[in-house]
Amino acid sequence: MSTAWKRKDLLTIRELERSEIELILDHAETFKDLLARRVKKSSSLEGRTVVNLFVEPSTRTRTSFELAARRLDADVVSIDSASSSFRKGETLKDTGLVLEAMKADFVILRHSAAGAPQFLAERLKAHIINAGDGAHEHPTQALLDTFTMRERLGGKREWKDLHVVICGDILFSRVARSNVWALRKLGARVTLVGPTTLVPDIFTELDVTVTHDLDAVLPDADVIMLLRIQHERQQRSFFPSIGEYVSLFGLNMARFHKCKPGVFIMHPGPINRGVEIASELADCPNSTVLDQVENGLAVRMAVLHLLGGGAAE
Amino acid sequence: MSTAWKRKDLLTIRELERSEIELILDHAETFKDLLARRVKKSSSLEGRTVVNLFVEPSTRTRTSFELAARRLDADVVSIDSASSSFRKGETLKDTGLVLEAMKADFVILRHSAAGAPQFLAERLKAHIINAGDGAHEHPTQALLDTFTMRERLGGKREWKDLHVVICGDILFSRVARSNVWALRKLGARVTLVGPTTLVPDIFTELDVTVTHDLDAVLPDADVIMLLRIQHERQQRSFFPSIGEYVSLFGLNMARFHKCKPGVFIMHPGPINRGVEIASELADCPNSTVLDQVENGLAVRMAVLHLLGGGAAE
Amino acid sequence: MSTAWKRKDLLTIRELERSEIELILDHAETFKDLLARRVKKSSSLEGRTVVNLFVEPSTRTRTSFELAARRLDADVVSIDSASSSFRKGETLKDTGLVLEAMKADFVILRHSAAGAPQFLAERLKAHIINAGDGAHEHPTQALLDTFTMRERLGGKREWKDLHVVICGDILFSRVARSNVWALRKLGARVTLVGPTTLVPDIFTELDVTVTHDLDAVLPDADVIMLLRIQHERQQRSFFPSIGEYVSLFGLNMARFHKCKPGVFIMHPGPINRGVEIASELADCPNSTVLDQVENGLAVRMAVLHLLGGGAAE
Repeated sequence: MSTAWKRKDLLTIRELERSEIELILDHAETFKDLLARRVKKSSSLEGRTVVNLFVEPSTRTRTSFELAARRLDADVVSIDSASSSFRKGETLKDTGLVLEAMKADFVILRHSAAGAPQFLAERLKAHIINAGDGAHEHPTQALLDTFTMRERLGGKREWKDLHVVICGDILFSRVARSNVWALRKLGARVTLVGPTTLVPDIFTELDVTVTHDLDAVLPDADVIMLLRIQHERQQRSFFPSIGEYVSLFGLNMARFHKCKPGVFIMHPGPINRGVEIASELADCPNSTVLDQVENGLAVRMAVLHLLGGGAAE
Repeated sequence: MSTAWKRKDLLTIRELERSEIELILDHAETFKDLLARRVKKSSSLEGRTVVNLFVEPSTRTRTSFELAARRLDADVVSIDSASSSFRKGETLKDTGLVLEAMKADFVILRHSAAGAPQFLAERLKAHIINAGDGAHEHPTQALLDTFTMRERLGGKREWKDLHVVICGDILFSRVARSNVWALRKLGARVTLVGPTTLVPDIFTELDVTVTHDLDAVLPDADVIMLLRIQHERQQRSFFPSIGEYVSLFGLNMARFHKCKPGVFIMHPGPINRGVEIASELADCPNSTVLDQVENGLAVRMAVLHLLGGGAAE
Repeated sequence: MSTAWKRKDLLTIRELERSEIELILDHAETFKDLLARRVKKSSSLEGRTVVNLFVEPSTRTRTSFELAARRLDADVVSIDSASSSFRKGETLKDTGLVLEAMKADFVILRHSAAGAPQFLAERLKAHIINAGDGAHEHPTQALLDTFTMRERLGGKREWKDLHVVICGDILFSRVARSNVWALRKLGARVTLVGPTTLVPDIFTELDVTVTHDLDAVLPDADVIMLLRIQHERQQRSFFPSIGEYVSLFGLNMARFHKCKPGVFIMHPGPINRGVEIASELADCPNSTVLDQVENGLAVRMAVLHLLGGGAAE
């Protein structure tokens, strides 16, 4: 497997070529094999330093990156927003320069502002990985999602014959945006579904179909990707009530029976059982929820490995 | 030393055989020797992943487990309740499954609900270690306590000739429960002492003596184990005042002089100097407080090592 | 390079000999070379345990120490005041003894009380490093500052020909105190500048010049070290307003033009752009802000290495 990776950073899926996406997915396969062993270690990043800078909290994603980096033998330091004394009176640029002066080789940035990783990448020599920036992009999530689809398909079907339905709060979702870019570059067909307030027609400009009727699209879906409803932020303003949302867009058994038998049910987690997905569907064989978590590690190891120059495995 | 350990998890002392307790204590002796060296490392858990999931906070116990795991060369990730975004809207089962999907080999769980570790153990392939569940059990605490007694006795006395007095808030104490199980299985005699509200007679069903008069039992005690008064929770409801508690159940110099000269004074820490124990007694040669902390590391290394299959030391 | 280090602890600059300061700076040079490599690791502290006990929070300094210790191959555990359950009802002495019982070889202590590291050092066998105690001392900061000056001077000038101006809140600054001790021992000339309320005349007893007129001393300064204004504490009581402070003591372009062309502008960070320093000056070639951060790592590695006995590099 030739290492043809050329970029310093991983900022967006939008800017990647299809061949770059596939290179990452190919490497992730190798790392997934490594993770199945008892000793789950590579020396790819030995003696190098990875800083997790999570200005917006996310223990789950941070833990995934932290384990990925440790398994590549890096020194890892995690800085959560809780311990925000790092940034007291300090701009993001200054924080970044300080981390670089401390010889961080990688900065993994989760930030509430779209574009923050790009901003750092232009100013630092360190490799920047976008771990989610506002409602903009979350590239490793889209990579682990497409890895999971590719793995489940097992080479039996082409991307162009795949129809992915993404359902929920598209407007505020970086997961949706990154997945749309990845799936369209790979050639899959994408339909976005949700309330009119959360899925405006403007999204058709991304070369996807927009609809507000989940039931109508279920029979033709190969993959249903459910997005997490962020109780805390949106329920009051963008739809009348959780109950109404669940009745129109929650995936329940009745809706599942309208789907193709082999449909994949995807969710980036953490899942709200009984809201966007019925509890029994989260645990059924069609659900890829835990595959996604596992593949997240393999994909993040592949990204760190490729950005780091791709030496010894 | 043959590795005869058969269990996937360490959930309670109640379920262990005497021989299993002794196997752990024997291995802990080996690890205590290792801790006395300059390079305090074993490769027993090389390339394996230990997650500290502390849903109820405890920096002290978490630090002890974290150091134990690192010294066995594991990759360690700690998740505190403070950074609870991991569990936002997520059940304990889902959190456990996510950690397993991330290839956690061990999950060390501190939880406020009795039975939470058992619940996880039934659902995950990962090894679960109970680091304290509600008022139920705290098995590694009882193991380090019995290790400390055995070490101080130095083989000069049999367990059946040992009389251990446990004093304080028995009702809410997982430390007391795990110690009662361990000491009775090993054969020691146990007396529980404290206010009637905190030491109900029902405890006699555990084959121990219950009394409310500390002074009466002191002359016959070989070990006095003091429990921590949890100021924050119990003082209002279960005894009239701290002052009254101290006068009846605090170990002071006057009471110490009623004891056998070689009595061991034990406390799980952190100690409230001047409350359950007089300050000078905490620091006297009879006190085992710091031995207990040190032995806690050795015992936790032994538990991790045995659960992990007991390979190379 | 012979290892002539004799002390168990690093508590203050005040107690060091000039030759000890220079020994640390010499070793820091070696470690700075190491940090420039791809694999930034030494095995100096292999199998030894470093505990960062930050009772007063400081993510920046904690991260610097944490990375320094990891790069020397130590096992590192960090305990922040946020996770203060460690100290619930526990004295500093008891916390220290518990850490030593857990076989901590080094305790790096940041504490709001002057003298806390000394107190621990007298009671523990572990090596204690003062990472800042109240308004008393911050020895590694002074070491990294003098390392940065020495490096920039490049052997072209003697310490005795160097004039360092320290400007700002001297009264409450451990950075200023440690730097005064270090610079006077090395032989440099020091002038302290700031409002009369923050730079009382008593400081002349430290064999430095005290003045309240920044503009008057600029033309003769080789180094201007600016201290951070702690917005949260002092603005109400010690000077009328931030605006007035900036107009009198902020380093701006007009003031910069009064300085020697090669003046070094130093700041311990995090900088308040537009308060103690104009934004363009923080980024100009005369600014050593990022050098200080980088050198902080090298200096801390040198301190850990020397205290630890200075074995294999």
